[in-house]
Amino acid sequence: MGPFEPKDPLFRARVMASFNRQEVMRTLGVEVASIEPGEIVLRMPYAAAYTQQHGFIHAGIVATALDSACGYAAFSLMPKEAAVLTVEFKLNLLAPARGEEFVFKGWVLKPGRTITVCEGHALASIGNEEKLVATMVGTLMAVFDRPGISG
Amino acid sequence: MGPFEPKDPLFRARVMASFNRQEVMRTLGVEVASIEPGEIVLRMPYAAAYTQQHGFIHAGIVATALDSACGYAAFSLMPKEAAVLTVEFKLNLLAPARGEEFVFKGWVLKPGRTITVCEGHALASIGNEEKLVATMVGTLMAVFDRPGISG
Amino acid sequence: MGPFEPKDPLFRARVMASFNRQEVMRTLGVEVASIEPGEIVLRMPYAAAYTQQHGFIHAGIVATALDSACGYAAFSLMPKEAAVLTVEFKLNLLAPARGEEFVFKGWVLKPGRTITVCEGHALASIGNEEKLVATMVGTLMAVFDRPGISG
Amino acid sequence: MGPFEPKDPLFRARVMASFNRQEVMRTLGVEVASIEPGEIVLRMPYAAAYTQQHGFIHAGIVATALDSACGYAAFSLMPKEAAVLTVEFKLNLLAPARGEEFVFKGWVLKPGRTITVCEGHALASIGNEEKLVATMVGTLMAVFDRPGISG
Repeated sequence: MGPFEPKDPLFRARVMASFNRQEVMRTLGVEVASIEPGEIVLRMPYAAAYTQQHGFIHAGIVATALDSACGYAAFSLMPKEAAVLTVEFKLNLLAPARGEEFVFKGWVLKPGRTITVCEGHALASIGNEEKLVATMVGTLMAVFDRPGISG
Repeated sequence: MGPFEPKDPLFRARVMASFNRQEVMRTLGVEVASIEPGEIVLRMPYAAAYTQQHGFIHAGIVATALDSACGYAAFSLMPKEAAVLTVEFKLNLLAPARGEEFVFKGWVLKPGRTITVCEGHALASIGNEEKLVATMVGTLMAVFDRPGISG
Repeated sequence: MGPFEPKDPLFRARVMASFNRQEVMRTLGVEVASIEPGEIVLRMPYAAAYTQQHGFIHAGIVATALDSACGYAAFSLMPKEAAVLTVEFKLNLLAPARGEEFVFKGWVLKPGRTITVCEGHALASIGNEEKLVATMVGTLMAVFDRPGISG
Repeated sequence: MGPFEPKDPLFRARVMASFNRQEVMRTLGVEVASIEPGEIVLRMPYAAAYTQQHGFIHAGIVATALDSACGYAAFSLMPKEAAVLTVEFKLNLLAPARGEEFVFKGWVLKPGRTITVCEGHALASIGNEEKLVATMVGTLMAVFDRPGISG
């Protein structure tokens, strides 16, 4: 529903700095593929360490990467003093997360001073084929001056 | 809302066998604390490797453990031929997942032949204090005779 | 999860005044059964006018009453200057909404200065039997000084 | 994510027949604007009788029309013996439902033999302007041979 005008022209650096502080992204091998105002794309390789009982990537790991994609999509449009927190998200699983690599797209549907609503898609790729495996809708919140919460 | 009569008297062994096949549980250090018909409790220690930018456990990792707790709560009431798949879940974050240890309770609200609805609570403990940090509502599905999907 | 201390000792009058301004409640015949701090109970009779194709009350009408129950549960704990808006809700349907009368309970799970998380149950009664037919989880927001939004 | 191939070539008549049995649609003045395979558009005029305390259409009434749009989008792709039930839905409110007329679009994201996932948008129009006011994600289920449930 963009394009959106970022409030902070240095939003890319701000998103990258915060993303790099998410230890879990490094642990899972998630990398930033692109950062646009209100739209983030992440990539993650398959790793057996994060699978469920049928050998697919666990739904919660898909949620982890999608929540970061949605969170940083929201964060990219926030003023530079804001920190971002997830209020809630919903994940729908459309197909098993079976693939060699996964792409996670998060985008802002409706930005707001306090509340931003985002959507996300998780895609699994095997060879040249890409398949939509999960969708997210999430509510993100801008917080200011909260102890222990920044960026 | 319980107590529920399990269809398979050997549900504990069936839940444990499937849980042990979830590589992600081993990776995250999640352990089974208790298995009752329609109610599962899991525990996980804090690990910096799974934190977000403020040093709390990432919401998606909380979702991972809660989804497994809900999934196995549903699975515990299913007949022994069934496999369980998550259709969707919603996570509400009530407080930062800050703690030394985390407890994840998942329970069946409404069992069904095909669809089971579960709820879950994530609790963070520091010393003797325990705090509710997230809630889940999830829809689980029993599947039968689907290639590549068992247990 | 309660009991909660209301910020405004006159919360009951404030809830009733706002509820009475919801034309849809009058139209549907929804009445307030009880108002406690952080917990509201509403009642609604069956009416064929609000049914879906199988003759049950439509899920959206169940959502209407549950959203009001959740919204006023949140509102009851807000300061007297606040207005309440629903950010989002999720409804799970556990059984057909078949009954002579319906009871809707909404309660606060986690109050907050800006964001309040509530849960709700819809119960259908036939004779002396009461059945849980739907559950809601909702996120409510306190807004202040917004044009056109009060109470 | 369509276009989709309907299993029943007479899907339009089947959708209309079921829609016409939803008393609540007649009561609210909701009409069918279009029926395509996996995509339904409904329209509803403003009516003060269905407003909340600020004079906007109540979120639950928006949910009622969107749930029908999503349900019939799913139903349009089901075989002719199936009945459709809503398992769950989530509604995000992006702006107050203020308008002279409302349009509700529901479409299938992922059809399935048992479970279909749909999305929906509610648009409010004033004069020539149209605004997205709410989004839905819903899980619908095909049921067969269940007593009291058909169409």
